[in-house]
Amino acid sequence: MTLPSRSLVLNAFIYPAGHHEAAWRYPQSEPHRVTDIRLYQEIARRAEAAKLDAIFFADAPVLDENIRYAARHRLEPITAITALAAVTERIGFIATASTTYYDPYNLARLFASADHISGGRVGWNIVTTSVDRAAANFGLEKHPVHGDRYRQAAEFVDVVTKLWDSWEDDALVVDPQSGLFAETDHIHPIEHKGEFYSVQGALNLPRSPQGRPVYVQAGSSDDGRAFAARHAEAIFTAHQSLESAQEFYADIKSRARGQGRNPDHVKILPGLSPFIASTEAEARALEDEFNALIQPEFSLQQLRRMIGVDLTGADLDAAVPRDAVDATRARAASSRHQLVLDVIDRENPTLRQLLHRLAGARGHKVIAGTPEQVADWIELWHLNGAADGFNIMPPYLKGGFDIFADEVVPILQRRGLFRLEYTGSTLRDHYGLPRPESLYSARRREKASA
Amino acid sequence: MTLPSRSLVLNAFIYPAGHHEAAWRYPQSEPHRVTDIRLYQEIARRAEAAKLDAIFFADAPVLDENIRYAARHRLEPITAITALAAVTERIGFIATASTTYYDPYNLARLFASADHISGGRVGWNIVTTSVDRAAANFGLEKHPVHGDRYRQAAEFVDVVTKLWDSWEDDALVVDPQSGLFAETDHIHPIEHKGEFYSVQGALNLPRSPQGRPVYVQAGSSDDGRAFAARHAEAIFTAHQSLESAQEFYADIKSRARGQGRNPDHVKILPGLSPFIASTEAEARALEDEFNALIQPEFSLQQLRRMIGVDLTGADLDAAVPRDAVDATRARAASSRHQLVLDVIDRENPTLRQLLHRLAGARGHKVIAGTPEQVADWIELWHLNGAADGFNIMPPYLKGGFDIFADEVVPILQRRGLFRLEYTGSTLRDHYGLPRPESLYSARRREKASA
Repeated sequence: MTLPSRSLVLNAFIYPAGHHEAAWRYPQSEPHRVTDIRLYQEIARRAEAAKLDAIFFADAPVLDENIRYAARHRLEPITAITALAAVTERIGFIATASTTYYDPYNLARLFASADHISGGRVGWNIVTTSVDRAAANFGLEKHPVHGDRYRQAAEFVDVVTKLWDSWEDDALVVDPQSGLFAETDHIHPIEHKGEFYSVQGALNLPRSPQGRPVYVQAGSSDDGRAFAARHAEAIFTAHQSLESAQEFYADIKSRARGQGRNPDHVKILPGLSPFIASTEAEARALEDEFNALIQPEFSLQQLRRMIGVDLTGADLDAAVPRDAVDATRARAASSRHQLVLDVIDRENPTLRQLLHRLAGARGHKVIAGTPEQVADWIELWHLNGAADGFNIMPPYLKGGFDIFADEVVPILQRRGLFRLEYTGSTLRDHYGLPRPESLYSARRREKASA
Repeated sequence: MTLPSRSLVLNAFIYPAGHHEAAWRYPQSEPHRVTDIRLYQEIARRAEAAKLDAIFFADAPVLDENIRYAARHRLEPITAITALAAVTERIGFIATASTTYYDPYNLARLFASADHISGGRVGWNIVTTSVDRAAANFGLEKHPVHGDRYRQAAEFVDVVTKLWDSWEDDALVVDPQSGLFAETDHIHPIEHKGEFYSVQGALNLPRSPQGRPVYVQAGSSDDGRAFAARHAEAIFTAHQSLESAQEFYADIKSRARGQGRNPDHVKILPGLSPFIASTEAEARALEDEFNALIQPEFSLQQLRRMIGVDLTGADLDAAVPRDAVDATRARAASSRHQLVLDVIDRENPTLRQLLHRLAGARGHKVIAGTPEQVADWIELWHLNGAADGFNIMPPYLKGGFDIFADEVVPILQRRGLFRLEYTGSTLRDHYGLPRPESLYSARRREKASA
């Protein structure tokens, strides 16, 4: 076991009121502040003081059908991160936005502008949107199927990349004497014509501090892995076991190598939702307190969304009904569906136990322990080829994040696993990713040397 | 002449490097800071100290074809205003976004989120985009014609209004005891099906502090006036003469009345670009200094864009060639085209004089004088039925704004024309506009009383 040469990555992942599905019912959570930007400013400042890499916002362009039961509304992530960038100096921000339901020219502008505003601290979490009902908000008869969404996403990323590269870094001249403001030979129409998009370009603002915002992605299905290995610079993923995480880690790094990419430039970041207290018993009691607050009718809806079968009416304290679950195996396309089947196979839980397991963080790893035990767990995964870092998913906000920042981060720092100070100023710097050269500059260089 | 009962409206209108087309060549302008959010933060803080109503950002979703000659790039306005809201407390912000090239669900979310983040200080400048070339950035064969764009805009505004109203103000319950987070009977699918859009809704975040962001609009064509009288709460308009402004003011107020609206809830705000110095002679010399910096080939391109005829090669110091200009009269659809024809008819200028006139602020009123003279001019228009306030268009940034805030505003305050302190906290408060009730709440009220 050797110490890795660079800091592990730690993102704080924001979910309304917190990641546990009953978070808002916990007395110390702040469910009235879900749309209060000051809550996130407090978190961002504390995360920056702890030297975290980034704050990460989830998204879906549709109202969650379970808003009756839980905090499932949110600020729009691009506006939220821009407001947070304005009151911080170093920490990065990742906003989720859908390739299925955004237009590439608008999205490219929004993120490029946010990258300028933040001084290069922005990442884009590329999603294709998994919720069928989103289609009806955008005039579509039906939500495109998984494979089609990924094909469209690949073209979308191609278009946006060309737009972000369309101004070479030296295009602005700004010479009042001659009257030359910009060298138009260094600003390129992208002239994209593809299956889904036709975009002329160029973008209407200069290349941003990072060249391109960091590409983040979360798919773990086969389509998702292929996409991630090709495009992603950071991957958010869900694993219940070290073995599963190791398999994923090795597979993605190998696929990235197969694409001619440097595997160090693809950061694998499993989700981790820690219940933390000064003794392990207290931490477990805290987790139990949250689980006692779940509403089974809501939890069953969440389960139905993952595996496509409604177990309403089944005995919560009997084993998960195998016949109903087994009938879904053949259509287990999503990685989340597969994860639920694995838990059932491995642990043979009661239905209530399964609901508790999923209530913590929608299938992401939940642990309960002391700050030392949480740090041990992070170290174990980090040093054993399972993770380059973690998306920390506080069970509730903001206390559930504060205790991680205040108690766990210093231990990781003392062990030499996490940075004591920022060494760079951009999110690419924090992640150890290079600033990409513009495609058009590269082309010009090649032409000149030919 | 009676003093109006409420403060006039003053917005600071941001244009890259300033509104004069040669602004960036003026030694005290800051053309390297066009994408530097700190420049706008400095302006916003100073404008807030001067108690201005709002900061206003123009936009077009396409790269200006004259970037070679001038600062014509910009931050994306929604992200820019959100970053500015984060570092201010009271001043409002208006962002321009296109109904032709945005999707209504995404736009509704972005503005609702910005309204939450700012605590209710956001307005949306509704444009249909006049630049043909924008179409190619969004996969359209051709830019829709003027009438079609306005028909689409009307439906777009209808959809967005319903989305902003889709959560009644009391929809969030947040009762941890019962487990009821939101009253779903008070969250409404909008089920919109129209000529251009099919949108299911509801929006995925609660109603924002202002209920709806302020509706701002800038069309002065006949289509534009009809649209404004129906939808706009503030109208940005260009007039060279008091008479023209008075005609527009009376027409819009009357059209609003005809729509059953309170004409006080439609603020008419002409553009004003003031060169300010301690003597009138110095102010005129400053304007001349700017005009001497123009690049005629660029100015002729701007003129071509307004009237659709290219006068490149014509003698700059002879009268504007009438034959070429007269040939455009029949197709003078835009209000800007008409304004140029009026200037030529009224003043019979040389081509250079015309270019200078348009260089100041693209057809908006340019004046040069002492702070007292600028205040006199504002008072004259304000008290004579020509304006409820003004969009101040600094010739250059940021000095050209600072002198207005520091020297002119205090005079207007001493004269009792402009507020000494903010009396409310939202942009609607500043403008004296009511907070609209949700359409769906109104419907529920009517049903209950029926």
